[in-house]
Amino acid sequence: MSGTLNVTKGVNVEILQDGFEVALNGVVLLQHTIQKPMLFVGHGEETIEMYRGNFDIKDYVTERTALRYANVEEMEGAYKIDLSNLKNGDTMLSLIVKEEENRLKVEYQKNDANINRFWLRVAADKQEKVYGCGEQLSHFNMRGKNFPLWTSEPGVGRNKQTYVTWQADVVDKAGGDYYNTNFPQPTYVSSKKYYCHVETTAYADFDFRNEAFHELQVWEVPKYMLFETADTYLELVEKITGLFGRQPELPEWVYNGVVLGIQGGTDVVEQKLEKVLAKGMKVSGVWCQDWQGKRITSFGKRLMWNWKWNESEYPELDKKIAEWKENDIRFLGYINPYVAIEGDLYKEAEDKGYLALNTEGNTYLVDFGEFYCGVVDFTNEEATEWYKQVIKENMIDFGLDGWMADFGEYLPTDVVLKNRIDAKIMHNAWPTMWAKVNYEAVSEAGKLGEIVYFMRAGYTGIQKYCTLLWGGDQSVDWSLDDGLASVIPAALSSGMIGCGLHHSDIGGYTSLHGNKRSKELLMRWAEMGAFTPMMRTHEGNRPDDCFQFDGDEETLEHLARMSNVYVTMAPYIKSLVEENARRGIPVQRPLFMHYEEDEKTYDIQYQYLFGEDVLVAPVHQENQTEWEVYLPEDQWVHVWSGEAYTGGSVTVQAPLGYPPVFYRKKSIWSELFSKLIHI
Amino acid sequence: MSGTLNVTKGVNVEILQDGFEVALNGVVLLQHTIQKPMLFVGHGEETIEMYRGNFDIKDYVTERTALRYANVEEMEGAYKIDLSNLKNGDTMLSLIVKEEENRLKVEYQKNDANINRFWLRVAADKQEKVYGCGEQLSHFNMRGKNFPLWTSEPGVGRNKQTYVTWQADVVDKAGGDYYNTNFPQPTYVSSKKYYCHVETTAYADFDFRNEAFHELQVWEVPKYMLFETADTYLELVEKITGLFGRQPELPEWVYNGVVLGIQGGTDVVEQKLEKVLAKGMKVSGVWCQDWQGKRITSFGKRLMWNWKWNESEYPELDKKIAEWKENDIRFLGYINPYVAIEGDLYKEAEDKGYLALNTEGNTYLVDFGEFYCGVVDFTNEEATEWYKQVIKENMIDFGLDGWMADFGEYLPTDVVLKNRIDAKIMHNAWPTMWAKVNYEAVSEAGKLGEIVYFMRAGYTGIQKYCTLLWGGDQSVDWSLDDGLASVIPAALSSGMIGCGLHHSDIGGYTSLHGNKRSKELLMRWAEMGAFTPMMRTHEGNRPDDCFQFDGDEETLEHLARMSNVYVTMAPYIKSLVEENARRGIPVQRPLFMHYEEDEKTYDIQYQYLFGEDVLVAPVHQENQTEWEVYLPEDQWVHVWSGEAYTGGSVTVQAPLGYPPVFYRKKSIWSELFSKLIHI
Repeated sequence: MSGTLNVTKGVNVEILQDGFEVALNGVVLLQHTIQKPMLFVGHGEETIEMYRGNFDIKDYVTERTALRYANVEEMEGAYKIDLSNLKNGDTMLSLIVKEEENRLKVEYQKNDANINRFWLRVAADKQEKVYGCGEQLSHFNMRGKNFPLWTSEPGVGRNKQTYVTWQADVVDKAGGDYYNTNFPQPTYVSSKKYYCHVETTAYADFDFRNEAFHELQVWEVPKYMLFETADTYLELVEKITGLFGRQPELPEWVYNGVVLGIQGGTDVVEQKLEKVLAKGMKVSGVWCQDWQGKRITSFGKRLMWNWKWNESEYPELDKKIAEWKENDIRFLGYINPYVAIEGDLYKEAEDKGYLALNTEGNTYLVDFGEFYCGVVDFTNEEATEWYKQVIKENMIDFGLDGWMADFGEYLPTDVVLKNRIDAKIMHNAWPTMWAKVNYEAVSEAGKLGEIVYFMRAGYTGIQKYCTLLWGGDQSVDWSLDDGLASVIPAALSSGMIGCGLHHSDIGGYTSLHGNKRSKELLMRWAEMGAFTPMMRTHEGNRPDDCFQFDGDEETLEHLARMSNVYVTMAPYIKSLVEENARRGIPVQRPLFMHYEEDEKTYDIQYQYLFGEDVLVAPVHQENQTEWEVYLPEDQWVHVWSGEAYTGGSVTVQAPLGYPPVFYRKKSIWSELFSKLIHI
Repeated sequence: MSGTLNVTKGVNVEILQDGFEVALNGVVLLQHTIQKPMLFVGHGEETIEMYRGNFDIKDYVTERTALRYANVEEMEGAYKIDLSNLKNGDTMLSLIVKEEENRLKVEYQKNDANINRFWLRVAADKQEKVYGCGEQLSHFNMRGKNFPLWTSEPGVGRNKQTYVTWQADVVDKAGGDYYNTNFPQPTYVSSKKYYCHVETTAYADFDFRNEAFHELQVWEVPKYMLFETADTYLELVEKITGLFGRQPELPEWVYNGVVLGIQGGTDVVEQKLEKVLAKGMKVSGVWCQDWQGKRITSFGKRLMWNWKWNESEYPELDKKIAEWKENDIRFLGYINPYVAIEGDLYKEAEDKGYLALNTEGNTYLVDFGEFYCGVVDFTNEEATEWYKQVIKENMIDFGLDGWMADFGEYLPTDVVLKNRIDAKIMHNAWPTMWAKVNYEAVSEAGKLGEIVYFMRAGYTGIQKYCTLLWGGDQSVDWSLDDGLASVIPAALSSGMIGCGLHHSDIGGYTSLHGNKRSKELLMRWAEMGAFTPMMRTHEGNRPDDCFQFDGDEETLEHLARMSNVYVTMAPYIKSLVEENARRGIPVQRPLFMHYEEDEKTYDIQYQYLFGEDVLVAPVHQENQTEWEVYLPEDQWVHVWSGEAYTGGSVTVQAPLGYPPVFYRKKSIWSELFSKLIHI
């Protein structure tokens, strides 16, 4: 067979002398010849070791076979491609190539039970850039590196060159690397304006190091892959969220100001509120992680992990929540999918058989760092319903308007689950299951759009079920890979694959190995936070080693001013959040999303567009009074000086309190933006 | 075909239902079935980057195919085994199995030009231990780890957990790991009492992590492999050196005392000699690296690398050498296979076309750390003869009685050589070629057995051509992987594969990243040095950061005493060196070599037998006054107290100056050993 075959209007299969080519709307995606096969299969024997959410994963690939020989067969509305490692040999793997809802769908069927490794090459160009793969903290454009996709702790330091990383590795095996993330996803977006999604929850590794192809490795034969093209990046992210789902809007109350992360009990909250309100701070809520109690470990302050009001820690909280709400200040708490062994929830869950088991049939205990927990088994429908009930009764009914829905990355690979599916396959699925538990609890309580829960863990499908991402536990420093800066590529990458609402702990979280949060870092982080969907502070894991928002008058006044900036911007932010809910266009966007002709924008990862009309270039280094910003060609106005710019690299004054922010002169919101100069 | 076929008396090929088995003298070495194939071939694309002798090597294995299907054919005195990945498929690789000089020889022929990766599995038992693979500094028994075999700098620190390693990595990419070594070799010895040698100089990686097999990876199809068995370990090392060759004896003068590493010129040597001789130190020689001049770099004191007497640095050296020799003190120098760009040797070699080229046809310059050198091309016979002449004229004729023949590990993989063989294949061959240059220069001058040169780099064949190994550049610390202790497994492993003469820099060498040599370290190292074939001190790379042998009176007296211990032991040591020259039995031996029934001895790597009759357990930790020693069952006498022991774990007093050393009561040398108590 030879010549061109159009399966449908979009998908085009070209039969070549010794192979074939598959294109979608003119974009060549798969190229196969005997000399350059696009598919390899084989067998590997992995070892996976977890230490407190950090994984040591090794693979011993015993076989990897090129499937050089293809036989293409026409079917109704589809093509079947049989692949073999030999001419006229037995089919080892079959592909069904078809169009489905304007997407190219490639389904896979393996004919050899021994196959547990799969490497597919997607055609690439030298100049091509790729983005996505979940939330990537070190590299927005992933070209030139490979990205293991396995949900885990993101690492402390995340750069083997730094002292903090080295110490974290030595002490806790926790240093991490550029690719470690709470939220991986086997989905990427190419600058050739297509997305590619692999439907799998197995361990995967997407390798973007080669010039002529991207090699997608999966530790199973995936069910299928999807490709979709678009004319613009906006249309592309719209299509991505058309596939994965879109987030609801944020609650109205979020726009009232900053959410203050406070711990220590009712009195402390009261005192701090009084103090900040007197300073004119706009406060939308208080977020008290320790509403359910706390414990002290060598890592720092940790929580009790028994998900209900801790009356001794927060006396009269039931009354206070209502009182604060009357004053437009909401109360937010904390939960995660584990129950600590000392708590009554653990006892109840264990009695009812709701916890995951070990291979001996006993409750599997996970080490979270000097304390142990059971894993609520979300593959057990009754357990899931029970946990939703815990959320509804203990949190929603109690009056909480939001919470951190923490963790989700720790499912051990040797745990025994109710559904009997290998935990290696369920591991990556867990974050989305955890998100869904929250989503259903909230929606069943009729509170979608009124409650906000924020998560760091994610995987395919999180788009629909997670109301807001937070960037995870950054180190309280200026490091590119784990400090303030890292949050920006995190927001941009997750936004590219459909999670358009992102924010981070103002000030960062992890203070270890001598790393302490400075006042300046806290202030710069707050400046950035004012230009994200939600502002929220965090005390950090070791509050005494972290400068706090009420550490001195200047910092208090700075945060108060930034909360006013945020509130001033709120109508605009709300419109962006609405656009995200409706079309899936992220609130924080890479510059190329609106300036795709400008090649320079494709490698910018420490600036972002805040909607179409605002450009933000957070100061992410210490001791800066001015900052260099790249502006794509347009008419820009610097918000603090009113000065006009037309594009290119410009240096602006950027003292504390005045982050480099610009708006488009032609924006319909320009009047609103022009108010910032007066704050 | 089925049943048993004896190729010859020793080699036995058993034809199985779906495979075959090859044994030598009853030891099953190769086992092959369709389900558990013993051979895999494939294709890889490597990237090799060198930075000052440290290599970053990555492999992208695109294909790895199990050769499951075997066809065994009888030939004259041999069996031919054709292997295919398919039943009745084309032969991808053929094996010729035969017996040659009582060895099992397996030759390989590839039928597919695309194959550049080769993985062979040798049958293994769970309890089996393996040793050798060149000079291994971290692990004597290699079971449980894999060992890349590529000559390189061994690393500074060699353990990612240590600060020194981390800093060395960050600053110079030089931290290294447990397997990095100047002297790798694709040869190992099994506790099943066989050796296995792979004939190749390509990159290799021997993987001893699996229970049922050892997987030997080679980046080419090797020419052949050899196996040989023996009844005892002594017989086995004798057979190994029967294959690779044996070292000549050390010169007589070596036994006169310690060789003092001194730098700084004639006057400094004179002054130091006067001082130490007055203390009663026994001195056999002075070793002046900087006899050919020096330079200062950020690393420390470096040499000029223009191999001839530097008269301004060493005035009247020509006369002094003769004068010292009359007083039984020899002069030793330094050379390596590179010529610095500033020197006249470089100019001469470049003019004559003796230097290796880059791909543009110009002289290839290698960065040795703030200075550049040409590579004398030993694949060019004229260049080799010229360099031998340099050694003969500038060193031997000038009166040198020994030298450090440094380096050999730095051949860049992109260098163009006269013989046009890929430098990736020549890289591992280089150390032995360099050794051969020295060997031939010395033997052609009629000085074999009178001159000693010591090397750190090695590879297959070094056994015959290197008169003495030194352990390379240890860090001046107590670390197991790179300090004093590391020298012991280094001596044991190289001894197992036929390099029976080993010694090390007393005090270690590398002082970087805050690491400074303490007085105690120097003293402990000297104690160990007295129980090695040759005692030699080193100032270190940063002499001012290293405590020196003349740093104070106590240290001087300690070294003087140790030199007397060495001289007292000399007749015994000489007999061991003679045994090594005659039979290839190493001077430093693992305990199991004489106590093979004692299972505990197989994992002891920080003690050694010094010949059959002396057991040495160097104190390799700081601040020790006593030391625990394991003694195999025998009648032992503690040399310093005369106390008798019969075996087991014993703790002895081990203050400075009294290293834990024992001798066999029944030894014919016991009278000699009993003299030590009086020193």
